[in-house]
Amino acid sequence: MRIAELSRRSGVPTPTLKFYLREGLLPAGRRTAPNQADYDERHLRRVRLVRALVEVGRLGLGDVRRVVQAVEDEAVPIGRAIGIAHWALDAQRAALPGDEETDAALAEVDALLRRRRWQVSPASPARRVLADALVALARLGRPASQASLKPYADAADRLAQMEVELTRHEGSRAEAVEFAISGTVLYEAALVALRKLAHEHYSRARFPAD
Amino acid sequence: MRIAELSRRSGVPTPTLKFYLREGLLPAGRRTAPNQADYDERHLRRVRLVRALVEVGRLGLGDVRRVVQAVEDEAVPIGRAIGIAHWALDAQRAALPGDEETDAALAEVDALLRRRRWQVSPASPARRVLADALVALARLGRPASQASLKPYADAADRLAQMEVELTRHEGSRAEAVEFAISGTVLYEAALVALRKLAHEHYSRARFPAD
Repeated sequence: MRIAELSRRSGVPTPTLKFYLREGLLPAGRRTAPNQADYDERHLRRVRLVRALVEVGRLGLGDVRRVVQAVEDEAVPIGRAIGIAHWALDAQRAALPGDEETDAALAEVDALLRRRRWQVSPASPARRVLADALVALARLGRPASQASLKPYADAADRLAQMEVELTRHEGSRAEAVEFAISGTVLYEAALVALRKLAHEHYSRARFPAD
Repeated sequence: MRIAELSRRSGVPTPTLKFYLREGLLPAGRRTAPNQADYDERHLRRVRLVRALVEVGRLGLGDVRRVVQAVEDEAVPIGRAIGIAHWALDAQRAALPGDEETDAALAEVDALLRRRRWQVSPASPARRVLADALVALARLGRPASQASLKPYADAADRLAQMEVELTRHEGSRAEAVEFAISGTVLYEAALVALRKLAHEHYSRARFPAD
């Protein structure tokens, strides 16, 4: 299909698609004339993924680029590619320098991982994101404990186990990685929105508004 | 305390504190000399909240300002202030124009709210955030159903009910609102990080990396 058709089917304006092409978020089409290229279903899928990451996942351009590079790199096995794409979501934040408070919080995170018997790389960016949340809670005078984190870890365990079981493995390597990453980002958005809706419901009963 | 002491205790550099003051994220101190002001524990608490919202919650300046305004406005009752502060977290996104796909997704969200008997305002921004996630999933060829959303709604229900019960109500009105909003943002960050850690664990077993 021509770029106009890709725009129509994806709902993304042509100038935005050209921006995605320039920025390497979308692979080039098959050149059919000096000034014309042909796009296929693979491009359409990629545009929808990028749009979901930007609009729903609120990812910055650098994060989207890292995710897309992980999807593209055919050299790495599928399991590793899913891992790299997941890591790319938080890579920027995890690279910030830590301090003593951060180190203490990372030790708490590791204690939780051990207790759960979750096998996670020490380089996983989510480990640092969790530690940052623990540091902020402690600074606000409400330190989290292993007990206060348990309901969150229980929920995360149940959901992640189910999601990994549901990950579609047939189709191309790129499709499987795209499926995993879009599920992570979009169901994360759904989960946090549902938590806020449930909050509103229970808060109304506890704190009548007027 | 002087601004240098506020900086030392909060870990936020003085120029950043002056920026918070200029931008209305931090209330002015008590003027003690033409070029000097005095700050108290209330200011320290506020600096820590703003820092948590920016660094862990990744909120933009406009969102933080809306949250802080909701905390400040003494005219509204506490329950309503908590609601306004929560809404402010997603206000910008919910103001985007919708289309037919969005309307259909909002109808699905409302069906879920009815089935759950969650009392939520139709103007709640989280309603729109959830609808946007459903639209993106449908576009990627993996529409969510009431059944596929159930585990997320179950987890959200359990966590929100527990969190609202734990909301501290003694202390000042501003403290209670700050407590509620920092809990929402920081435990959200903890929850999504835990989900990614659990994902990494279960993915390793399902997709051996090398």
